[in-house]
Order: sequence, then structure tokens, then C-alpha cells
Amino acid sequence: MRWIAFLLIGVAAGIGVIVLTAPASGQGGGEAAPIFGIKIPLGYRDWRLISVAHEEGDLHSFASILGNDAAIKAYRNEKLPFPDGTVIAALHYSHASSEENNKVFGRSQSFVPGPPTNVQFMVKDSRKYATTGGWGFAHFNKDGKPGDEALLKTCSPCHAKASRDFVFTQYAP
Amino acid sequence: MRWIAFLLIGVAAGIGVIVLTAPASGQGGGEAAPIFGIKIPLGYRDWRLISVAHEEGDLHSFASILGNDAAIKAYRNEKLPFPDGTVIAALHYSHASSEENNKVFGRSQSFVPGPPTNVQFMVKDSRKYATTGGWGFAHFNKDGKPGDEALLKTCSPCHAKASRDFVFTQYAP
Repeated sequence: MRWIAFLLIGVAAGIGVIVLTAPASGQGGGEAAPIFGIKIPLGYRDWRLISVAHEEGDLHSFASILGNDAAIKAYRNEKLPFPDGTVIAALHYSHASSEENNKVFGRSQSFVPGPPTNVQFMVKDSRKYATTGGWGFAHFNKDGKPGDEALLKTCSPCHAKASRDFVFTQYAP
Repeated sequence: MRWIAFLLIGVAAGIGVIVLTAPASGQGGGEAAPIFGIKIPLGYRDWRLISVAHEEGDLHSFASILGNDAAIKAYRNEKLPFPDGTVIAALHYSHASSEENNKVFGRSQSFVPGPPTNVQFMVKDSRKYATTGGWGFAHFNKDGKPGDEALLKTCSPCHAKASRDFVFTQYAP
């Protein structure tokens, strides 16, 4: 009995670790986001850099924007619209002051990523996602839980206002 | 004669393009930076992301920090000191307000990389660079020209104040 309890605790702890570190490690899978049915793509943390971003207003967020091979190729060839198979990932963190760096600089000037907040994906599939400009959208909180339908319904109307095939982010050389 | 002039203009323009886009495309080579003799590493723009950074004060800069395989492995294994062969790249851009994004958000809150300003490298070689903590430093302006000796002499005394083997940047999951 004690052995079984230990085993169960071990399994539960293991599951906890997997869920908690899913967005952090680039480990794929987990629960699919609603509407578009997108799961966290395996190994996205190894993708190449498209650009970085910083949002103030209500967000106070730092982001790195990574792309799979199709995304990087399209960006570098300046080819629009993005081809089917393109996946763009936005890894969000809080925009935090760095005490260590500021001490060295002698003034408050250095900002670094604080704790991760969420990771978002755009997936191009012009047939599957025809009603939303050919793009599917997904959002996962830092614990790996997907954002709800109400949140995901806000993605496409806003991205439709971007001037380059629903994508705001431009490539940083 | 006219033909030769055309050829010369073509060659000169070609060289210009190569020099100007060297840091942008991740193309290696070019002139070595002084003191440490480091050239731009081939393909660094394809390296994986370590983190992002934002400096105010006199800099107003945005950065993406990329690492070669040795750097990424050491960061992920939380292994210090960094092993010989580690190379860390800091790609700097101006920190620019995004008019396009701000129009969509309805207020000024969105910052993106402006034009590239420079790219800097730290190369770990504990024997070759023994007098500077095992690290060599290089700086290349946006035109591919290396920074001068006076600039490079400021790198190591400042990085010596970082708490993790001369490196300020921490890994962003």
C-alpha cells in the first residue's frame, strides 16, 4: 500500500513537472487550444529567431518571436503570403528591471525577461483556417493550459489589421 | 573602356553589398576585431535564442542574444564555467516605437527593433584568453567594421562584474 502511494505521488509529481515545464522547454503536446485545435509544437524553443518585441500599456511584456523553417525561409525570401506549414511562436515574459546589470551600469537602464507569462502560436493552413485569413491561433499560459475560446476569438480580427498577411512581426536581420 | 567601367562598378557594388550585409545575414568572415582576433562567425544568425534584452540610458537598444550549440547546452544544463568553444552573440538594434502596431492598439505601447546597430561576440577559450577571464570579445558595427582597441579594452573589466562567468545574460525559457 505504501509502495502504491509512493508510486502515485511519483506519477503525479512527474505529470506536474511535464505540464509546468511544457512551454519552457519547448516540449510539445499537451492540451490543444480551442477553436483551432493547435497543440504546443514539439521543439519550438529550438527554432530560429525572427525578432524581439516589447509591449507597454497593460502588457509590460518582453517577447522573442521564433519561426519554424518554413517561417524563416519565407521571411528571408520576403515572400508573402506565408506558405502553408508556417508556424510563428511568440514567447512572452514580463519586462523586468535587472538589478544585477543596473548595479554594474551605476543606473537603472537595463531590462531583461522576467518570468515567462505565456507562449502563442500562429499556424498557416489556408484551407483549414480559411475563415480566419488562413491562420490558426493558439495561446498557452505558463502552466501549459490553453487560453479559452473568448481569448482566441480576439486574435484574428486584430491580426487582420497587420499589413503583411496577418503578421505584425517583421524580420530583424 | 565602358565595359571595364561597368565591370568595376559591378564589382565595387558587389563588395559593398557583401560588407554591408555581413552582420545582417550571419555571413562569417570579414576583418578580425583587434586584440582578440575574432572574426564574425559563419551562420551565427541561425543560432538558437538565449534571451532578449533592452537597455535605456545612453543606449536605447534592443538585443537578441543567441548562442552556438556549446552555449545553449551549457545554459540548459546550468553548467558554469562555460566550456571552451562557447560563443555568445548579441545582436543590437535601436529600440524603436512601432507606428503600425500602435495604430492597431490605439495607443503608443509597442516597441520593435529599429535598424541594426552592431553585433558583439564573446568567445570562450580559457588558454588563449587567460588574461581576460577566458573570454575573447569582439564588436562589429552594422557595416561589418570591427570596433577599435579602445572599445574592446572596456569589455572584460565590465563583464568581470557579472556573477556567472563574465556573462550577464541569463537563459529565457
